[in-house]
Amino acid sequence: MNNFDFCTPTNYVFGRDTELRAGELAAACLGNKILLCFGGHSAKASGLLDRVETSLRAAGVEFVEFGDIKPNPTDDRVYEGIDLCRRENASGILAVGGGSVIDTAKAIAGGVPYSGDFWDFWAGKAVMTEAMPVGVVLTIAAAGSEGSGNSVITKIDGGKKVSLRTNVLRPRFSILNPALTETLPAYQTACGIVDMMAHIMERYFSNTRDCELTDRLCEGALKAIVDLAPRVMADPADYQARANLMWAGTVAHNGILGVGREEDWTSHAMEHELSALYGVAHGAGLSVVFPAWLDYVAQFNSDKIEQFGRRVFGVESSAEAIAALRTFNRAIGMPITLAELGITDPDIPLLVSNLHDTKGPLIGNFCPTDPSASEKIYRLML
Amino acid sequence: MNNFDFCTPTNYVFGRDTELRAGELAAACLGNKILLCFGGHSAKASGLLDRVETSLRAAGVEFVEFGDIKPNPTDDRVYEGIDLCRRENASGILAVGGGSVIDTAKAIAGGVPYSGDFWDFWAGKAVMTEAMPVGVVLTIAAAGSEGSGNSVITKIDGGKKVSLRTNVLRPRFSILNPALTETLPAYQTACGIVDMMAHIMERYFSNTRDCELTDRLCEGALKAIVDLAPRVMADPADYQARANLMWAGTVAHNGILGVGREEDWTSHAMEHELSALYGVAHGAGLSVVFPAWLDYVAQFNSDKIEQFGRRVFGVESSAEAIAALRTFNRAIGMPITLAELGITDPDIPLLVSNLHDTKGPLIGNFCPTDPSASEKIYRLML
Repeated sequence: MNNFDFCTPTNYVFGRDTELRAGELAAACLGNKILLCFGGHSAKASGLLDRVETSLRAAGVEFVEFGDIKPNPTDDRVYEGIDLCRRENASGILAVGGGSVIDTAKAIAGGVPYSGDFWDFWAGKAVMTEAMPVGVVLTIAAAGSEGSGNSVITKIDGGKKVSLRTNVLRPRFSILNPALTETLPAYQTACGIVDMMAHIMERYFSNTRDCELTDRLCEGALKAIVDLAPRVMADPADYQARANLMWAGTVAHNGILGVGREEDWTSHAMEHELSALYGVAHGAGLSVVFPAWLDYVAQFNSDKIEQFGRRVFGVESSAEAIAALRTFNRAIGMPITLAELGITDPDIPLLVSNLHDTKGPLIGNFCPTDPSASEKIYRLML
Repeated sequence: MNNFDFCTPTNYVFGRDTELRAGELAAACLGNKILLCFGGHSAKASGLLDRVETSLRAAGVEFVEFGDIKPNPTDDRVYEGIDLCRRENASGILAVGGGSVIDTAKAIAGGVPYSGDFWDFWAGKAVMTEAMPVGVVLTIAAAGSEGSGNSVITKIDGGKKVSLRTNVLRPRFSILNPALTETLPAYQTACGIVDMMAHIMERYFSNTRDCELTDRLCEGALKAIVDLAPRVMADPADYQARANLMWAGTVAHNGILGVGREEDWTSHAMEHELSALYGVAHGAGLSVVFPAWLDYVAQFNSDKIEQFGRRVFGVESSAEAIAALRTFNRAIGMPITLAELGITDPDIPLLVSNLHDTKGPLIGNFCPTDPSASEKIYRLML
């Protein structure tokens, strides 16, 4: 184990009807005038936004709506949100939605008190030291942004999708009502499952030795997800399976499963390029990328993949472990090739050059990946 | 899964030499005048207290020493500490030690801003709403108090050992340097291992259904501890095994392994009576109590014990699971009978009446225990 600092100050408020506490929590943590961020049609159509707004009014919290935040969120909406917060003199931000809404809310929160361009933080030109407080009402179990200090934003100019991680952006509270996820389309549910597993595996596949405890926690979480996934795919209204998966999505990414070790994140970087170039859903992209990355790294570093196979899927070899992961992904309706992802003629040289333009000549830690290796990994997705 | 609120705001600062950051962290979180709590001889003799005090001075933090806090800490020292804090106008408390020192520091922290008797909170006569900030430099991996809002104090008058749990008492930061535990005597190390396993098992043995994720995390943590324990017993200076165990002790008790479920805590209650009457070490007491409690409840509720056996020890029946736990405890040098604990002629009727005087007619949730059942369980320890 390496030395580490770890703090998750987010107050998780979990269970049925917890969105009715949005007003009380916002009043306590976000101040009396908030930007209310949400995504598309469903938050309104489902009645969720109404319930949240009623709760805010009852608690005496004023709000300004900021809706229509799209998947793979872009910098233009962040600038717009920063302007709106400043104009309205907002004291905090409440995100009602999934990862895209939360990540946008966080980026706005970091941008408002900063005199420069918010993108400086994402570009590594400045270090964020303060942000407006953010609260969350989560509607999709996937991105883990409700428990993390991460925010992934795409800069429209150049199409770069960049992730920032800072404790300053950890939400003050996150309301997690699993029932809100019961109406998600099956494809989106499956994308979320792949994403949360990837968040664990990016941490699990590490060369840092002597992390027995965290390894066991990662394996336990993965095993639980693998067992629960078929239940929600078979019965989308299985509240208890939804509840376990929603909490798994938070635990997967709030940092507890990565303490004291080098993490990897190559697969996420490779997927971000697929999303940026072809507009695919992040989870579906990861379903294709992660097994291909494992195929490649298994040549050099197979022990941990064997351990993963043994403890999560009950198989013996690294090849069987990767096959089991692909079988699992396919069983929940996810693609495992670029063609199945709808990318029939991928421009691999462009993907590779975009990837290394963004991330530098070597990516990841488990088996550092240069452009030649990246090209091989993308080809393994064909 | 039941609804839950969960928040662990403690900043964990983990690894080698981290006690050198005590000053920086105290200045940021505890204010500029602190009560410095510690236990017996070893904190001074080891040089740890010197290093902490040097770090405090360098950060401009004044301190008042408050030492000689004993195991199974008592209310008299809490009153004394409260008076001292008020007299010195302290802004915070730093605990350098294990569970007893931390629990005393927390009780003082809760008592200082309260106009009544601090024991009101432990007696359930008042609800704590504020406390002075507490920081920790941990020296023993066991009690988990460094990550919890719990504090166990014994009232000398009547000998009652009572536990309070409130988020108000969660430490602001906890410095965890595993190297500090390398010099612990083997017996104390083993007591710590039993205690942290018990903290997990008190949460794990629950009738709340549909907690697959948390079950898997509990089992993973237990399995890791079972695998790591022989390493530190064989080589007390195995830093990496110490590191995993220290972090396990924190994770075991900071609440993450109990979310969304009813917990039990019968074994702790039964052990507290043994400690109070016979002055035994808490972990050694738990080593005797927990398997006996499992023997008793297995008659009524064996499925979860079988699952525990299968997933932690790789055995099939509940009887084999309990036998495996006893074998493990004995292998690390812990007692498994009252006689081995040095209690050759236990006053079981008195233990039972003290227990139910403190806890009421029914104890625990997994298999609620009345006085007749408690007597049977104590007899299973003979």
